[in-house]
Amino acid sequence: MTGHNSFSSRSHTCGELRASHAGEQVTLCGWIQYQRQDLFVILRDFHGLTQLFIPQDESGAQLKEVLCDLPLESVVRVTGEVRQRPPGQENKEMPTGDIEVCVRSVEVLNACRRLPFEIKDFVKKSESLRMQYRYLDLRSVQMQYNLRLRSQMVMKMREYLCNLHGFVDVETPTLFKRTPGGAKEFIVPSREPGRFYSLPQSPQQFKQLLMVGGIDRYFQVARCYRDEGSKPDRQPEFTQVDIEMSFVDQDGIRTLIEGLIQHSWPEDKGQIHVPFPCMTYAEAMKYYGTDKPDTRFEMKLVDISEAFKHTAIGFLQDALNKPQGCVHAFCVPNGATHFKNKDLEVLRELAKTQFNQEVSAVVVKSDGIWKSPLSKLLTESEKQQVCQMTHARAGDLVLLSAGQPQDVCPALGKLRLHCAELLEARGVGIRDPSAFHFLWVVDFPLFLPKEDEPGQLESAHHPFTAPHPLDADLLYSQPHKVRGQHYDLVLNGCEIGGGSIRIHNAKLQQYVLEETLKEDKGLLSHLIEALESGAPPHGGIALGLDRLISIIVGAASIRDVIAFPKSFRGHDLMSNAPDFVPAEDLKPYHISTTWPAGAQKNKGQEP
Amino acid sequence: MTGHNSFSSRSHTCGELRASHAGEQVTLCGWIQYQRQDLFVILRDFHGLTQLFIPQDESGAQLKEVLCDLPLESVVRVTGEVRQRPPGQENKEMPTGDIEVCVRSVEVLNACRRLPFEIKDFVKKSESLRMQYRYLDLRSVQMQYNLRLRSQMVMKMREYLCNLHGFVDVETPTLFKRTPGGAKEFIVPSREPGRFYSLPQSPQQFKQLLMVGGIDRYFQVARCYRDEGSKPDRQPEFTQVDIEMSFVDQDGIRTLIEGLIQHSWPEDKGQIHVPFPCMTYAEAMKYYGTDKPDTRFEMKLVDISEAFKHTAIGFLQDALNKPQGCVHAFCVPNGATHFKNKDLEVLRELAKTQFNQEVSAVVVKSDGIWKSPLSKLLTESEKQQVCQMTHARAGDLVLLSAGQPQDVCPALGKLRLHCAELLEARGVGIRDPSAFHFLWVVDFPLFLPKEDEPGQLESAHHPFTAPHPLDADLLYSQPHKVRGQHYDLVLNGCEIGGGSIRIHNAKLQQYVLEETLKEDKGLLSHLIEALESGAPPHGGIALGLDRLISIIVGAASIRDVIAFPKSFRGHDLMSNAPDFVPAEDLKPYHISTTWPAGAQKNKGQEP
Repeated sequence: MTGHNSFSSRSHTCGELRASHAGEQVTLCGWIQYQRQDLFVILRDFHGLTQLFIPQDESGAQLKEVLCDLPLESVVRVTGEVRQRPPGQENKEMPTGDIEVCVRSVEVLNACRRLPFEIKDFVKKSESLRMQYRYLDLRSVQMQYNLRLRSQMVMKMREYLCNLHGFVDVETPTLFKRTPGGAKEFIVPSREPGRFYSLPQSPQQFKQLLMVGGIDRYFQVARCYRDEGSKPDRQPEFTQVDIEMSFVDQDGIRTLIEGLIQHSWPEDKGQIHVPFPCMTYAEAMKYYGTDKPDTRFEMKLVDISEAFKHTAIGFLQDALNKPQGCVHAFCVPNGATHFKNKDLEVLRELAKTQFNQEVSAVVVKSDGIWKSPLSKLLTESEKQQVCQMTHARAGDLVLLSAGQPQDVCPALGKLRLHCAELLEARGVGIRDPSAFHFLWVVDFPLFLPKEDEPGQLESAHHPFTAPHPLDADLLYSQPHKVRGQHYDLVLNGCEIGGGSIRIHNAKLQQYVLEETLKEDKGLLSHLIEALESGAPPHGGIALGLDRLISIIVGAASIRDVIAFPKSFRGHDLMSNAPDFVPAEDLKPYHISTTWPAGAQKNKGQEP
Repeated sequence: MTGHNSFSSRSHTCGELRASHAGEQVTLCGWIQYQRQDLFVILRDFHGLTQLFIPQDESGAQLKEVLCDLPLESVVRVTGEVRQRPPGQENKEMPTGDIEVCVRSVEVLNACRRLPFEIKDFVKKSESLRMQYRYLDLRSVQMQYNLRLRSQMVMKMREYLCNLHGFVDVETPTLFKRTPGGAKEFIVPSREPGRFYSLPQSPQQFKQLLMVGGIDRYFQVARCYRDEGSKPDRQPEFTQVDIEMSFVDQDGIRTLIEGLIQHSWPEDKGQIHVPFPCMTYAEAMKYYGTDKPDTRFEMKLVDISEAFKHTAIGFLQDALNKPQGCVHAFCVPNGATHFKNKDLEVLRELAKTQFNQEVSAVVVKSDGIWKSPLSKLLTESEKQQVCQMTHARAGDLVLLSAGQPQDVCPALGKLRLHCAELLEARGVGIRDPSAFHFLWVVDFPLFLPKEDEPGQLESAHHPFTAPHPLDADLLYSQPHKVRGQHYDLVLNGCEIGGGSIRIHNAKLQQYVLEETLKEDKGLLSHLIEALESGAPPHGGIALGLDRLISIIVGAASIRDVIAFPKSFRGHDLMSNAPDFVPAEDLKPYHISTTWPAGAQKNKGQEP
């Protein structure tokens, strides 16, 4: 026997009985969802709801006493006969609504205490209450759907990788050594004084070593760790679908992943089409002001510098007179209709305070009349040109900004998203909630200037990414111009994956680490040694599973696709982790707590 | 395109070309295994070996130069034409031995340095060298087989659970709170002073909470952690196939697991038969002196107390005069032939020093004559009775011991295993190396006396195990007599899994925790609260995946089925983890190292 009822004491789930089962003796197990008129009880399990009918004869008296007095959410096992509901009493909303089970016997498996809230309203409860009573929250239809869809999608991914394409599922250690610059890695004290393991942010080194070891095709649904304090919607532990293969190029990995997502895509979410579109990093920054464009809607950025070649406006002149200086803009269709003056004020303020950029708003009135502080200072031809370049028409709003492209584009890109949200809040459909727009972003720069030391370069992603073959020579002369063989996968404006073709040449890797990045060469000597020992060319990718699933199910947070997430401060509100550990228990690890001045020392620890 | 070559720059693996491919143009990628006579090169990948033939004409000169001068283990891509080997030159030992590939072009993908040892001899190298250069060790046929079999077996388990029986794969947190008595749990400092996460030994609490949350059927291939210092053949992180389901009894879980193992069993390991035999804990202790009997061979323990009712031998008298006193023995068939006097001396010494028990050896000579210090002190009838009871015949060896059963049986049980090993070392076949004997052991005691405080009870397994229904009342009067609904799965004398039906009643759970075990009730209050909130009856099991796979592939150690294991001291010899962390990097976690007196303080940390 297979299916949902094998090995169990029920004959059917609460979601499967139909009119065709009428006359059958069945056993159901589940939770009491509600009781009605001392006559009906609705029983619930993970699969659905079934109406129980209590016979109104002598035999039913005791059943009624048991079933109707039980607190909601109590667990029972009932046996009885399936029968069609009397005509007119069917419930078309309910998959089992054609039948009811006439109860013959009942066994109370566990009475529930009176809960502090009703389960059905639970989703409206505060986030912290949901987390504290997660085991109740998990009973909700939405959480059951999310976790089951996640399980099924991962299963299909495994079938694709393992059964169809010969990938090997290999588990890699999570107790590892600190990587250079691994400031976000949790540490784990060992029993040797001063020595610590660390919980890695990804199996990057191990997956490359597996390629050196001839595993050829590796995957793992890998637990990863990142200690970021309290960033919103980040979890200290998260899951990535980690993939690496040998003798492959960028195209190969991209085709593999497109097939993977198509194969595992949930049927009820419509079809997705492959190949996914592909955009360079330069294009993404230029048209969307971000490396993860939300391509579900237009409102692309346009370079309108050309329109202001001869402008009389001072701040535009100033910007354009500098090398690379530019003016960019985007048009919000019907923005003039939907946005009030106050909204425009808020947008300008936002750009200034949050994105550090001055933005001017132009409301395009009918017949080419502008409402804007700039209006008087512009010639008709300039106005016309701006409208032409941004495709702005009467009733539209144009937002423009001047300066260096690396400042202007990101600010406008963020405003673009903000405008979309604002329009949606006003009831204007901008992004189809059932649309899934996948996009590859490629040709990233290999190195970026260090934020706190701009003369120094750091890896844009990580030091193992191979340079673009066409830029190989630039590495030694103009490393900041080198593009990397890195690719990001973007879905609906969120980065859901990233990977690269790796450096497999030991000398090249050593050069990048020592000469370009000035890393301590000792820390990765085992990797260099491995590359010298017959490393095949290889590349891979990691998909952020929590994020991917949360977008697919339309969850507000990745916490809704994780069974037991941490709160945004990294706490488990149910068990109260992390918790104080007695000083005595720290001794085997040769560590002690250094209490900050004024801290409470008496929480389970001696001073 | 599916299979091993999709998305890659090869057309075939090195293991798949046959005579039927003759005439095809192929591209192979792989490692140079060896070169011969400047004429042949053997190319290797994960799938096998293929012979390359270098044409002896002008076109071949350059190919010869490249291919024959490359160090072994260099990585190349070759294209060429498949052709049948000339008659008489086929290699029947080699799956591709009917063909060779006549090379047309070669690309050196990565030259290998001269390795410090030859790959083919690698398995004979020391364990520490294998660990240090694990990426080379992984290229061995055996490691490739082990890791690939593991991946495939886990995949089949997932198909069985997820696709056939509706189980939901749920990931549970590894950053959790310390459990009561969790002395073996690694701790992870958080950024809040004095507060620590811990890495759990199993997802026990989470899987039960998932049942309370209505997930109904859960599984996870779960990473677990145990800090045991340096026990041989234990790993600080290990993997268990973790399973829990609702509305199930012991039989249901056992049938589920038998099906799981049968479904995932590797084809090349023969058939296994279900149901597995089942033995009570009491029987296992009585007949094998252990709760994990190796049932691949007989030599069972026998209670021979009856034979000595009227004995004149002092130490037997003494033992039998005490309550529960007994004499047990087992017979080693042909032991008299295979064991020398010195062996018997060693066995007695072993029993005394290691197992803390006096053991007497009786060599049964032909026609009932005994060679034993006991011989003169026993009557003929006593001797006859002993031989009858132990089925000892001429040429056999009988080992006997007297005392309390809880001392006698375990000592004899260990001697039984030791004798089997000794016989095998002498070339006597005792255990079929291709045999797989599964066994359920059930009806364990629920509680055991604490070792350091025998008046107190502790859980034999864990405090969540439900008592045997027949013993429910004993819980309140004679808790030490209560059997638990626990079951262990044993394979060839190793425990490879264990589980139980859990307590789902909050009051019962509270009684066990507070009254029987005297635990601090605050620590598990969230679990009690969950049981009160409509917890279904549930039970589960966890299988030790590393151990299971290592037995199936016949590995000497679980390290041989783990890609990157730790050394027995918990070190990663490749990367040198755990490693010293600068004191500066400990500050965010509010901890500092407390150096033992005389320790080296200068290893990367300030004092």
